Amino acid sequence: MLTVNYVGDRTLDVRTADQTEPRDGEVRIRVAYTGLCGTDLHILHGNMDARVERPLVFGHEMSGTIEALGAGVTGWSVGDKVTVMPLDWDGTCPACLAGNEHICQNLNFIGIDSPGSLQGLWNVPAETLLALPADIPLDHAALVEPVAVAVHDVRRSDLTAGQKAVVIGGGPIGTLIATVARHTGAEVVVIEIDAQRRAQAEELGFTTLDPSASDQVAWVEEWTAGTGADVVFEVSGAAAAVRGMTALAKVRGTIVVVAIHPTPREVDLQRVFWRELRLLGARVYQRADFETAIELLADGVIPTDRVITRIVPLAETADAFAELEAGRAMKILVDVQAGA
Amino acid sequence: MLTVNYVGDRTLDVRTADQTEPRDGEVRIRVAYTGLCGTDLHILHGNMDARVERPLVFGHEMSGTIEALGAGVTGWSVGDKVTVMPLDWDGTCPACLAGNEHICQNLNFIGIDSPGSLQGLWNVPAETLLALPADIPLDHAALVEPVAVAVHDVRRSDLTAGQKAVVIGGGPIGTLIATVARHTGAEVVVIEIDAQRRAQAEELGFTTLDPSASDQVAWVEEWTAGTGADVVFEVSGAAAAVRGMTALAKVRGTIVVVAIHPTPREVDLQRVFWRELRLLGARVYQRADFETAIELLADGVIPTDRVITRIVPLAETADAFAELEAGRAMKILVDVQAGA
Ligand SMILES: [Zn+2]
Ligand SMILES: [Zn+2]
Repeated sequence: MLTVNYVGDRTLDVRTADQTEPRDGEVRIRVAYTGLCGTDLHILHGNMDARVERPLVFGHEMSGTIEALGAGVTGWSVGDKVTVMPLDWDGTCPACLAGNEHICQNLNFIGIDSPGSLQGLWNVPAETLLALPADIPLDHAALVEPVAVAVHDVRRSDLTAGQKAVVIGGGPIGTLIATVARHTGAEVVVIEIDAQRRAQAEELGFTTLDPSASDQVAWVEEWTAGTGADVVFEVSGAAAAVRGMTALAKVRGTIVVVAIHPTPREVDLQRVFWRELRLLGARVYQRADFETAIELLADGVIPTDRVITRIVPLAETADAFAELEAGRAMKILVDVQAGA
Repeated sequence: MLTVNYVGDRTLDVRTADQTEPRDGEVRIRVAYTGLCGTDLHILHGNMDARVERPLVFGHEMSGTIEALGAGVTGWSVGDKVTVMPLDWDGTCPACLAGNEHICQNLNFIGIDSPGSLQGLWNVPAETLLALPADIPLDHAALVEPVAVAVHDVRRSDLTAGQKAVVIGGGPIGTLIATVARHTGAEVVVIEIDAQRRAQAEELGFTTLDPSASDQVAWVEEWTAGTGADVVFEVSGAAAAVRGMTALAKVRGTIVVVAIHPTPREVDLQRVFWRELRLLGARVYQRADFETAIELLADGVIPTDRVITRIVPLAETADAFAELEAGRAMKILVDVQAGA
C-alpha cells in the first residue's frame, strides 16, 4: 500500500509500505478520502518538529470502510462506512477524570502523535470509530472532523436561536462555524480581510465585513442596536483581530478562542473587566460533536460543494499542500483509494 | 458641614458646604466612616479626569445612619444604620434589560460620577440603601463595599468547597477575595511580590508564594497533584502576572480578571485554547453580593482588625492618601462624623 509521509525539511514522501494486521481491539480501514488542514500544513512547515516523529504518516480528517476486524472487536462489520474521531486519551489524568477526555493532558492525537490516514489501509482502535449513514458520500464524510470542530466551538459558546454572532476569519473553520451558528438560528456576520474569502462567504449567504475598510465596532453596534454581539468567534489567528475582538461583544458576552496563537497576544482586559466578558478556549471536539457533525452533513446543512475546493489523487498531495499554502483553497481532499 | 473634594492637579480640598434637603425618594445620611480605595487614588492622581467633574466629593465605601427622609421614602426610619451600594443604573440599556444592571452601559457610579460619601451629610436614592445589623460597628461596616467586590468575584468564579484557588496580588481586594474563597471551603494560596504584604497574608493564615523567588507553576502543579488550580484570581494588575496566570489553571479552569489593566496585556491564548480555559471579567457587585458581605462581616468572617490599617479624622484625608500611595496600608478609613 501507499503512505504519505512528512519526512522533515518541508518535504513529503509517498512510500510503499506493507500493510499490518489490526491488533486486538483495532480495525483496519480502507481509507477513502483524507482532508488536509492547517495543522497538517504546520507539520509540513516544520513548526511541530519538536512534537512529531519523522517519518510521520499524517492526516486526521477522513472517511473509509472497514476492511478487517482485530480480535475482540464487536459491533462492527467489514464493509461498514466509518469515520474516525482521532483522539486517544489515557483515561487517568486529571482532565480525563474530570470528564474532559477530549483534552486529556496526555492526549495522543492520531495523525499527529501517531500514524494518520494518508495511507491506503489504516489500523485504528475500534473506540475511535463512528458509523456513517449509508447515504453520505464518502467525500462529504471526510468533512466530519472539521465540522465537528465547528460544532464544538458553537456548542461551547452557548449560542442560541435569535442571537447575533461575529465570526472573525472566513477560512474553512470560520466558514463552518458560521454555517453551524446560522443553523442554530443565530444571525451571523463574517469578518474577513481577504476579498476572495469574503466573496466565498457571501456566496454562502453570509453578511461580511472588511475590517480594513469599515469600522467594525460601529457596524456591530448598529447591527445589534447598541448591545454588542452575543458571541464572537476568533478564528483568524491574527494579533490585530485579538486586539479588536473584545470591543465587539455585549455585556457578559462570550468570546471563543478557536484559532492557534503561537505567541502571547495583547488582549484588552479592561474591556473584559468592564463588560464582564467571558473568554473561552475551545479545542477539538467530543463524541457528541462528531455525532452532530454527521447529522448536519447527512441533512445537507453543510455546503460541501463550496467547502470542498478540489479532490486530488494521493500522488498529488504535495501540490495540494502548495495550493493550501497559497491560502485560496477552502478544503482539499486527497483520494486515498488507489493507495490500498 | 464639611466635604472632601478632589479639585484637580492631585489636590484635595476640605470645604464647608451647606447641607441640602433630600429630594423625593432620597434619604439624608449622617456619614460615619468612608474607606479610601485604589479608585479614589486613581481619581486623585488625575487618571480619571476625563470622566470626573471637579470639584468632586468622592468616596463610595461607607457606613452611616439615616438622618432625614425625602418625600415618598417608605420602609426606612431616621436612625437606621445603613450602607449604600453606590450604583445608579438607567434601567433601559441592553445590559439592564438583560438583568445586568450592576454593569449598566450608562452606569452612574456614585462617588465617581456623582457626589460621594466624604461629606458629613449625604443624600442618596433610597434604593441604594442596605440595612446594617445593630451589632456591626460602623467602622467595620465601611468595609461592606470592598467585601462585596470580593464576594462578587468569588461568586462569579463558581468556586466550590474543596477546590483550590490562586489569588495573584495580596492587597486589600486580594486579601478579601482570599478570605471569601477560604470561607467557601476552598484552599487558597496568595501570590504576592511584596514581602510585607506576604507577611500580612501569612498572619491571616494564608500560604503565600513570592513569584520572584519561586517557580509558581511548578509549585501549583505540585500543590494540585498535576491538575492545576480550579480558579485563578488576577488582582495584581501587573503585566507579568497576566503573562503567567494561564499556566496556573487546570483544564477547563477559570481565571477571573479583577484588577484594572489600563493597557492591553499579553495573554497566552495558546494555553487558553489548549486547556479550554475560561477567562471572566468581574466588576463591582450585585445586591446579593452586598447582602452576603454584610453577613460575612456580621459573622466575624472578615478580619477587620487586620484589614483596617488606621482610622483618620476627615481633616487628615490627604495624609491618608499619601500613606495609601506608599502602598503599605491595607485599608484606611476616614472618620467623617465631625463633618456633619
Ligand atoms: Zn487524560
Ligand atoms: Zn443600563
